[in-house]
Amino acid sequence: MAKPPKEPRPKAEAPKGFRDYFGAEVTTRAEMLSKIAGVYHRYGFDALESSAVETVEALGKFLPDVDRPNEGVFAWQDEDEKWLALRYDLTAPLARVYAQHRNDLPTPYRRYAMGPVWRNEKPGPGRFRQFYQCDADTVGTASMAADAEICAMLADALEEVGIERGDYVVRVNNRKILDGILEGVVVQNEKTEALPRNFKEAIQTKLSEWDFVSRDAILRTIDKFDKVGANGVIELLTTGRKDQSGAFIDGVGLSEADARRIVDFMQSKGQDNAKTIANLRTLIDYSEVGMQGVDELEQIANHLAAQGYGPDRIVIDPSVVRGLGYYTGPVFEAELTFEILDEKGRPRQFGSVAGGGRYDDLVARFTGQQVPAVGVSIGVDRLLAALHAKGKVGDSNIWQGPVVVTVMDRARMADYMAMVGELRQAGLRAEVYLGNPKNFGNQLKYADQRNSPVAIIAGGDEFAKGVVQIKDLILGARIAENASLKEWKERPSQYEVPRAQLVEKVREILAGQV
Amino acid sequence: MAKPPKEPRPKAEAPKGFRDYFGAEVTTRAEMLSKIAGVYHRYGFDALESSAVETVEALGKFLPDVDRPNEGVFAWQDEDEKWLALRYDLTAPLARVYAQHRNDLPTPYRRYAMGPVWRNEKPGPGRFRQFYQCDADTVGTASMAADAEICAMLADALEEVGIERGDYVVRVNNRKILDGILEGVVVQNEKTEALPRNFKEAIQTKLSEWDFVSRDAILRTIDKFDKVGANGVIELLTTGRKDQSGAFIDGVGLSEADARRIVDFMQSKGQDNAKTIANLRTLIDYSEVGMQGVDELEQIANHLAAQGYGPDRIVIDPSVVRGLGYYTGPVFEAELTFEILDEKGRPRQFGSVAGGGRYDDLVARFTGQQVPAVGVSIGVDRLLAALHAKGKVGDSNIWQGPVVVTVMDRARMADYMAMVGELRQAGLRAEVYLGNPKNFGNQLKYADQRNSPVAIIAGGDEFAKGVVQIKDLILGARIAENASLKEWKERPSQYEVPRAQLVEKVREILAGQV
Repeated sequence: MAKPPKEPRPKAEAPKGFRDYFGAEVTTRAEMLSKIAGVYHRYGFDALESSAVETVEALGKFLPDVDRPNEGVFAWQDEDEKWLALRYDLTAPLARVYAQHRNDLPTPYRRYAMGPVWRNEKPGPGRFRQFYQCDADTVGTASMAADAEICAMLADALEEVGIERGDYVVRVNNRKILDGILEGVVVQNEKTEALPRNFKEAIQTKLSEWDFVSRDAILRTIDKFDKVGANGVIELLTTGRKDQSGAFIDGVGLSEADARRIVDFMQSKGQDNAKTIANLRTLIDYSEVGMQGVDELEQIANHLAAQGYGPDRIVIDPSVVRGLGYYTGPVFEAELTFEILDEKGRPRQFGSVAGGGRYDDLVARFTGQQVPAVGVSIGVDRLLAALHAKGKVGDSNIWQGPVVVTVMDRARMADYMAMVGELRQAGLRAEVYLGNPKNFGNQLKYADQRNSPVAIIAGGDEFAKGVVQIKDLILGARIAENASLKEWKERPSQYEVPRAQLVEKVREILAGQV
Repeated sequence: MAKPPKEPRPKAEAPKGFRDYFGAEVTTRAEMLSKIAGVYHRYGFDALESSAVETVEALGKFLPDVDRPNEGVFAWQDEDEKWLALRYDLTAPLARVYAQHRNDLPTPYRRYAMGPVWRNEKPGPGRFRQFYQCDADTVGTASMAADAEICAMLADALEEVGIERGDYVVRVNNRKILDGILEGVVVQNEKTEALPRNFKEAIQTKLSEWDFVSRDAILRTIDKFDKVGANGVIELLTTGRKDQSGAFIDGVGLSEADARRIVDFMQSKGQDNAKTIANLRTLIDYSEVGMQGVDELEQIANHLAAQGYGPDRIVIDPSVVRGLGYYTGPVFEAELTFEILDEKGRPRQFGSVAGGGRYDDLVARFTGQQVPAVGVSIGVDRLLAALHAKGKVGDSNIWQGPVVVTVMDRARMADYMAMVGELRQAGLRAEVYLGNPKNFGNQLKYADQRNSPVAIIAGGDEFAKGVVQIKDLILGARIAENASLKEWKERPSQYEVPRAQLVEKVREILAGQV
């Protein structure tokens, strides 16, 4: 019988677009999320951990974000022919959970969720197919107090993880005001046509037909405000514009007046919230839905003021565009206002780390019943990057490597184990070297690789004398870089202490290193 | 054009075998895992979070556990035709990660990992297709100090989460001793045959052929020791046995002497570790691998004694069977020794919550290189169940519902928001009622559903007088159950305090409820 061909060895590689997280990468994120969870808990939000796997039916086939309709999910067929998929966000599962358990859940239902989600996208630099999301949502109330609460909670969460007041701002806008503006645009565009008796319905019909033509184009255009400025946006909303490369970008085709009304809306931020709201009222007075949007912003501003959240933390700002497309009412965005250097070394604002808003179609897919909801999602990786940029991680002891007890004499292993046991009992992070102890240099290299603050050394002489050598590796490294030969010889970074003082001396050295 | 048929509404259901975790179910587990991670960290173990998705090639097709070769994974084909799958445990990904990153990782590499794994199994009661695992492994050292360290760490972890000393024991055995016993069995069985020159190789060949016939059968049989006792196991290892129902179970076919040698091995536990080791030496003195196994156990016992872990916590116990099949050296199991009531109300020992051992084929699949490793896995759900059984969860404030600020007058919403803001600033968990406030009874029902300890009530009268009503809901519920009408009328569970004393009084009530 012929031997079967030997199977080739499998490749040791994470799948394309997936990565592993090591050590502090894991614990820093966990620590940050735990602080955020503490804030959410204080606000009365309950944790929810839904399954990573959902039926494709429950999930809906595509991502809700209109900009990316073709992005996929990881899906497969179950034994009973049902299609299953990995969740692509935490909102779709919330909808399923709320619809499934609504009779047992309180109304409103405040929940937070933190965990990985998966996207079957083309991976790119810094873009992975598995990443963390961190959401909080209130389901089942239309009260603006819920929106205000989530904005306040977001501000508290940012401060809790280490973003100082003044380094962030939560900016609040309302999709309904844009709807009002667009309503005006439609009325104007259609004003030459004979209006049917049911005026309102006609506008609705127009709006929803029109939706697919220009609303997205308008949103995409005003999102360029930061880059091209007010005049640039007006050009792009009307007849078009030459970009920097000289290429001509077609315009959306609005009238100059309509375009200006949209830009006025975005620029209507006043000295304070009251002024902004007054500006908006003047702009939108002809539209019922627009005025409703302004009223909602005013309620949010009042609720926040009552709780002491001033515009230094949360501010009404009609220039917020992100999220306008997806949400149905108030939208908000947390921006970090400090500067970092970009990859070319130029200073730029850090930018957005969280966003959210009100949406009403959460549960309707399942039950037919409209359920109002409002939520926020924190960009976990962005916020972590911000904390790194501000030097807000690394001070905690989770970054510190272990004290390494080296092995000079393999026959004394039990003695080394006793030392490491004492150190751990005292709450100190410690290990005994478990590699091949023959080459002592390798042990110190290992300690270096482990980021060890301290190494313990004891051989025959030390055991005979009842002492141990304790090496301050951080001081040692500093001396090795800067010291003169004389200083070096004095070895001030290594101490001989009686065996009984091991823990005490290590503690003292660690305290000095902080 | 005919209208497309209306799509039916999706079912709001988690996929079969998957479930959602709510509130304290999530936070209790997170708290427990965080305590365990703290212990692992102290021992110098680093966190690792590998991707949930692996290539099927890297994962290997089947679960490593020989008892369940047909259990599957959730797998699908990627766009580039590669098969991907959800990890079914945390060990297979560790092998891939170690092989992939071995040049950057320290040797030995101590890592812990906690997270969900997925099994494409038939779901059953209490058996889910997604569940948590919590592993720690040391890769790259053959030193028994690593095995001892993991046993000590397991004991520390159990105590850290709330299992008291005396309520658990970590029992340690060694697969090599069973191998030695089996070697004897083979030699005996084959003694009538002419032995080839290369005696050792012949035994190896025999052993590996024989593997598929009786080794598993022997392991399965001795695993029944608890149920059928020593004589029952001897019957099953030899000629067979009638079970309780009267059915005859075929025997494995060993000789009476061989069967007795195996049972003697399992029963060789002595008064203390030294005695057990002496007993084992007597039993196995003819086998090189068996003696090596005993030496290893002795080293582990010495390392543990040096660190102060006596047999009240970790003990050499040759009756440990679980894991003998999978591991290649020392094996260990943490058992909880207190009794709980089973579903029929009968007391029984809680049993095993963690297990582990040494295995050497971790990385060889990828690199061809044998890398020694030892690890432990804690059964997260089992340990959580044990903590519940011992009443060790629920005392932390993560279980407490929020203070609920009720809404008597919707126009005063900003005032209620101010109250809830003050409570949260003081670090208290609090919410304002955001449902429809019309029916006050519903608000109290909501507070009840939320497990609220305290409700705040303020209407027109209270605002006019500058006071608030504070209702102790826990005392109130107790009174409602037991009190006389007179006591009830005196309403000692409700207090009127000046508005400025809101936080102070709530604090006082919460402190009294603990």
